[in-house]
Amino acid sequence: MEAKVSSTSQLDRLIHQRVRLGIMSALAVNDTLSFSDLKALLGITDGNLSVHARKLEEAGYIECHKYFEERVPKTEYRLTELGRRALGSYLDRMETVIRAARGA
Amino acid sequence: MEAKVSSTSQLDRLIHQRVRLGIMSALAVNDTLSFSDLKALLGITDGNLSVHARKLEEAGYIECHKYFEERVPKTEYRLTELGRRALGSYLDRMETVIRAARGA
Repeated sequence: MEAKVSSTSQLDRLIHQRVRLGIMSALAVNDTLSFSDLKALLGITDGNLSVHARKLEEAGYIECHKYFEERVPKTEYRLTELGRRALGSYLDRMETVIRAARGA
Repeated sequence: MEAKVSSTSQLDRLIHQRVRLGIMSALAVNDTLSFSDLKALLGITDGNLSVHARKLEEAGYIECHKYFEERVPKTEYRLTELGRRALGSYLDRMETVIRAARGA
C-alpha cells in the first residue's frame, strides 16, 4: 500500500459533531449570539441546541450569560479563549485532512 | 446579530463521522487498501473498522472484494465513483465551513 492518509482520530470529537461545529463556527464570527439566534441560524430544535451548547459549555469552549430583557429571560453565548484556540486547532487539522484526501 | 455562518447541516453525516472520514480519505488517495492496511492506517479495532466500512458499503460509497491469498482470506476496499463524488462534495462543503468560521 502507498499508505498516504492524514489521521482523522486527532480531530477534537467535541467540536467535530455537526451541531457543535455549527455553534462554534457561528460564535467564531459573531461576538455573541442569543439562544434564538443560534436556533434560527442552525435550524435546529430547542432540545438539540440545549444539549450541544451544554456540552460545549462544560468543556469551557463557550460561556453563557442569562439575563432578562423586558421581563423575558434571554440566554447569550460567546466563545471563550480556550474555545477559540480549540476551534483554531480543529480547523487546522481538518484542512490537513482535506489536503491529504485531495492528494495535495 | 450579524448572522454570518455556514450551515454544517449539509455535511453528509455518513462521511462526517471520524472513522468513516478516515476510511474515505485513505481510499481517495490509495487505489485499494486491505482490511489490515486500513486498520493499521486508522489505528482502530477490527470491530470498529467492520462496522463503519459496512455502513459505507451499504451506501454504495466503497466496495469490497474478498479473495484468498495463499489460503488466507483477504478483504480489499476501494472507493466507488459515487463515493468519490460524495467525498468531493463533502470536502467542498467543509472548506466553505472552514472559510466561514475563519471569517474569510
